[in-house]
Amino acid sequence: MKHFENIKLYKDKGEHLYIQLYKAIKKLIMEERLSKDEKLPPIRKLAQKLDVNNVTVVNAYHILEQEGLVYKKMGSGTYISPDFLTYISEEVEDQKIIEGLGSLSLIEQGQIQIKNNMINFASATPMAELFPVDDFKEVLNEVLDRDKGHAFDYQESQGYLPLREALIKYVREYNIFADINSLQIISGAQQGIDIIAKALLNYGDTVIVENPSYTGAIASFKSRGAKIIDVNLIDDGIDIDDLERKIRIFRPRFLYLMPNFQNPTGISYSRSKKEKIINLCKQYNMYIVEDDYLSDLNFYSWDNTTLKSLDTNNDLVIYVKSFSKIFMPGLRLGFLIAPSIFYDHLLFAKHSSDISTSGLLQRALELYFTRGTWKEHIKYMEKKYKSGFDTMLRSIEKYMPSQVEYIHPKGGVNFWFKLPMEISSRELYEKAIRKNVALAPGNLFFIHQNDNNHFRLSIASVNNYEIEKGIIIISNIIKELINDINRSGLNEEKYRPIL
Amino acid sequence: MKHFENIKLYKDKGEHLYIQLYKAIKKLIMEERLSKDEKLPPIRKLAQKLDVNNVTVVNAYHILEQEGLVYKKMGSGTYISPDFLTYISEEVEDQKIIEGLGSLSLIEQGQIQIKNNMINFASATPMAELFPVDDFKEVLNEVLDRDKGHAFDYQESQGYLPLREALIKYVREYNIFADINSLQIISGAQQGIDIIAKALLNYGDTVIVENPSYTGAIASFKSRGAKIIDVNLIDDGIDIDDLERKIRIFRPRFLYLMPNFQNPTGISYSRSKKEKIINLCKQYNMYIVEDDYLSDLNFYSWDNTTLKSLDTNNDLVIYVKSFSKIFMPGLRLGFLIAPSIFYDHLLFAKHSSDISTSGLLQRALELYFTRGTWKEHIKYMEKKYKSGFDTMLRSIEKYMPSQVEYIHPKGGVNFWFKLPMEISSRELYEKAIRKNVALAPGNLFFIHQNDNNHFRLSIASVNNYEIEKGIIIISNIIKELINDINRSGLNEEKYRPIL
Repeated sequence: MKHFENIKLYKDKGEHLYIQLYKAIKKLIMEERLSKDEKLPPIRKLAQKLDVNNVTVVNAYHILEQEGLVYKKMGSGTYISPDFLTYISEEVEDQKIIEGLGSLSLIEQGQIQIKNNMINFASATPMAELFPVDDFKEVLNEVLDRDKGHAFDYQESQGYLPLREALIKYVREYNIFADINSLQIISGAQQGIDIIAKALLNYGDTVIVENPSYTGAIASFKSRGAKIIDVNLIDDGIDIDDLERKIRIFRPRFLYLMPNFQNPTGISYSRSKKEKIINLCKQYNMYIVEDDYLSDLNFYSWDNTTLKSLDTNNDLVIYVKSFSKIFMPGLRLGFLIAPSIFYDHLLFAKHSSDISTSGLLQRALELYFTRGTWKEHIKYMEKKYKSGFDTMLRSIEKYMPSQVEYIHPKGGVNFWFKLPMEISSRELYEKAIRKNVALAPGNLFFIHQNDNNHFRLSIASVNNYEIEKGIIIISNIIKELINDINRSGLNEEKYRPIL
Repeated sequence: MKHFENIKLYKDKGEHLYIQLYKAIKKLIMEERLSKDEKLPPIRKLAQKLDVNNVTVVNAYHILEQEGLVYKKMGSGTYISPDFLTYISEEVEDQKIIEGLGSLSLIEQGQIQIKNNMINFASATPMAELFPVDDFKEVLNEVLDRDKGHAFDYQESQGYLPLREALIKYVREYNIFADINSLQIISGAQQGIDIIAKALLNYGDTVIVENPSYTGAIASFKSRGAKIIDVNLIDDGIDIDDLERKIRIFRPRFLYLMPNFQNPTGISYSRSKKEKIINLCKQYNMYIVEDDYLSDLNFYSWDNTTLKSLDTNNDLVIYVKSFSKIFMPGLRLGFLIAPSIFYDHLLFAKHSSDISTSGLLQRALELYFTRGTWKEHIKYMEKKYKSGFDTMLRSIEKYMPSQVEYIHPKGGVNFWFKLPMEISSRELYEKAIRKNVALAPGNLFFIHQNDNNHFRLSIASVNNYEIEKGIIIISNIIKELINDINRSGLNEEKYRPIL
C-alpha cells in the first residue's frame, strides 16, 4: 500500500480523477516499483485513502486491465500482470527500436545522403578517406596470388586459423590471455551480438542493458523474445545498487555492457566499478557480454581495462571486438572471445547465420596484421582522433551555451549532451540538418523512456575545421531556441538545466 | 480405435506388457498416425480388446502422460497432447540437427581435412580450382582504384544499388519480373534463410519442409522456436495430398521448398505440381520460401521453372538465390526477392544480423556481372558439370549393385541412393573414408526419422576420373557388405530393396 498512499489526485486539474489515478498506477508499474503478481489495494480501501468514490478506483483498474497491466482474480482482487514487462517491451520498445534503428541506419549507412559539404556528427564510423586502401589492396592481391581459388572457398565457421592466432597475440597486449579455441571470427560486432543472442537466449529470458545503450544490440536480443531491463548510467559507470537489485529480481541471462567510452554517453567505468561487476557476476552466476568497440582509443583515462582482462578464468565474459570504428566498417570483420561452455553453441549459431565469414577478407586481414601495417595505421588513426577530440572539447567550452549539459569523456569518439527541458533534440536535429549539420537525436539510444532532450555528436567522420564550425552552428541554433522561449515569456526557471 | 486394434503385445517377450503398450502407442504418435487432441480408447475397452489387465493400460497411459505425449481431462479421458510435435522436435530433432550439421559442416568446410588425394563426393560446392580467380582479381582491383575508401564503408543494408539493378536484369532471363525494392542482398543463402526466419517466424509457428531437406535451413527455423513438419517427396515433387492435409492441420507460416534438383534428392517438381502448389498457397493464404540453389544447372529437365516465376503478383514466394554452387562459396553473397509486405521486416532482420554485406565484394560482383564475364564463367561451369553428370550416370549404371536404388536426376549436382535395409550408410561412410572416398550419409538430411539407409553423392568437387574411380570403390564396398550378410546366413529375402 505504501506506494499508493503517495498518489496525489487533483480535483481542479481538468482531468478525470480516474484517469489521474490510472496514470499514477501505470507510472508505478513502469518504474517497476510494484512486483509481478503483487495485489493492488482493495477498491474500497484505496478509495477511502485517496478520498474519492469507489467508481474512480474501479474505472482506473479497468483501464489498467484493458491495457494488460493488471489482471483480475474472481473473488480475490486485482494483481499486477506478470507480463507487464513484456507489455512495456511490445508497446514502447518495438516501435521505438524499429523507428530508431531505421533513422540511425539511414544516416549511418548513407541511405540519407550525407551531402559532401555536410558536417556529419551523426556517424560514429571513420571517414572513408582515412581507410588504408592502398595497403589493403596490396595484401588482398598477395592473398589472391598465394591462395588462388582457396581464398574463395568456404572458410571454417570458427574462422581462418592464422588470423585467429594473430588475434590471440593481439589481445595479449591488452592483458587478455585467451585460448585459441575461445576465439570466434564474426562478420562484424553486430553479428557477434546477434549470434550470442541466438546461442544464449531463450524466449522470455531477460537481458540487462545500460540506459542509454546501443539499440542495434537491443534489437537482436528482442528478436529472440528477450525482455530488456535497463539500468541507468552514472558518472563512474552503471548504477551498481540498482543493477544488483534488478539482477535479484529478474535473474537475467546476461548483462550487455560497454565499460569503456560507452556508446552513446562516452562514460567510462571506474576500475573499482569494473571489479565490483565481475564480483557481482561471480556471486550471482551470471554472464557479461562486453561490447568493446573502442577501448583502444584512450586519450585521458587512467584505466581502459576491459572486463575480459579481469575475467581471469575466462568463464564470465563474452568479449565482442569490432574493428569498424578504428579500421574499416565495410570489412565486416570482428571477433569474440567466449567462455568454453559456449564454444559449441556459438559456433552452431554462427554456422546457421552465414556459415562463415568471407575467407578472402580474413586472409587479407591476417597478412595486414602480422606484417605490422595494422599498428602503423592504428597509430595514425589515434593521432587523427586525438586531435579531433581536443578540438571538440575546446569548441564545446568556447561556444556551447551553458544551459547545455554534457559528459566529458576521456576517450573514444562520442560526446553526449542534454538540452534544456523545453528544447527537443528532434527540433535541434531538424534545424541543424537544414544548416548542413547532422547529429544523432538521443531517443535513438533509450530503451524504455521517450527521450526528447539528449543528442550525440561523434567526431569520427569530421575534421577539425568541421568540428569547430559545426559546434558554432549547433550552439547558435540552441541559443536561438532558448531566446524563442524567453521571448514567448516563459519563466526563466523553466529552462534551467535539469539533473 | 483402428490403430489400437493392431497393437500386438507378447506375454513371453521378457518385457512388461505395459512397457510394450506404451512403446506401441508412442510409435503411433511419433509416426503422426494420431492427431492432436484425439482421445485415446477408454482404459477398460482397450484392456479388453488387448486381453490385458486394466492396470497395464493405466500404467502405459501414465508413462505417456509423464513424457508429455498425452494429457488427462478429469472425468473425460486421455488425449493426445497438442504439443507432441514440439516433443518430437525437442527429443529427436535438436540432437540430430546439432550432430548432423556438425558432421556436415566438418566435411563441407574442410574442418575434416579432405586430403588432396581424397575423392570428395561429400561436398556440394565446386572445386577451388574452377573459381575464376584472375578475372575476379581484376574487378576487385578496378573497384579499389575507382571507389577507394568507399569500397570499405558501410554499404546500404539492402545492398549496393548497381548490383541490385544488375540482378533484377539477370532474373528477367528466368522469367522473374521483380521490382528493384523487392531485392535484398544477403551474405549467402544461409543468411537469407536465417533473416527470413527472423523476420517471419514467431515462437511456436510452424514451417513445412520437404523430407529429406537441407538441415541448415531447419536449424534456422528451429532456432526461432518453430515447429517443423515434414512432407515426403515423391517422383514429381512433394506429396501434394499430404501437403494439403498438413497445411489444414498446422496452418504453417510458410513452406520451405527446393523445387528444382532438390537437395539432397535431386528430385525436380513437375510443372503441374509447381502450379498446384502456387494455387494451394493462394487458397490457404500461405507463403513459400523457395531455395533456388541450382535451377540454372539444367541438363535434361523439360521444366526448370522457378515457383517465383509463377508467382506473377510477387505476393507468395520469397525467392532465395545462392551463388555458392555455381560461382564461389567463399564470396558469401546471394540475394532474395520478397513480396512487398516483407520488405521492412527483412531489411530490419538483415540490419540486426550483420548491418550489411561487404561493399567491396558487392561492387566487384557488380562489375563482374555487367561486364559479361559472369556468363562466360557460367557456361564454362555448366559444361564441366554436364560432363561430370553424364560420367556419374554411366558409372552408376555400370558399377552400382542392382540392390542399391537411386533417383535419376535431370540436373544439378546431387545423386541420392538407398542401400539395402541391412546395410547402414554410416558403415558405408566409414569404410569409404578409409579408402579415401568421402560421401554424405543420409541421416544428415532427415528431420523426424532416424535414417540409416540413404546417402548423397555430389559431383561438384570431383573430376571425371575421380567419379568413375569413386563409384567403383563405393560399389565394391557395398558388394562386400552384401556378401558379408549372405555369408552370415541371413535370408536373401531380407536384403531385397525396399520401396
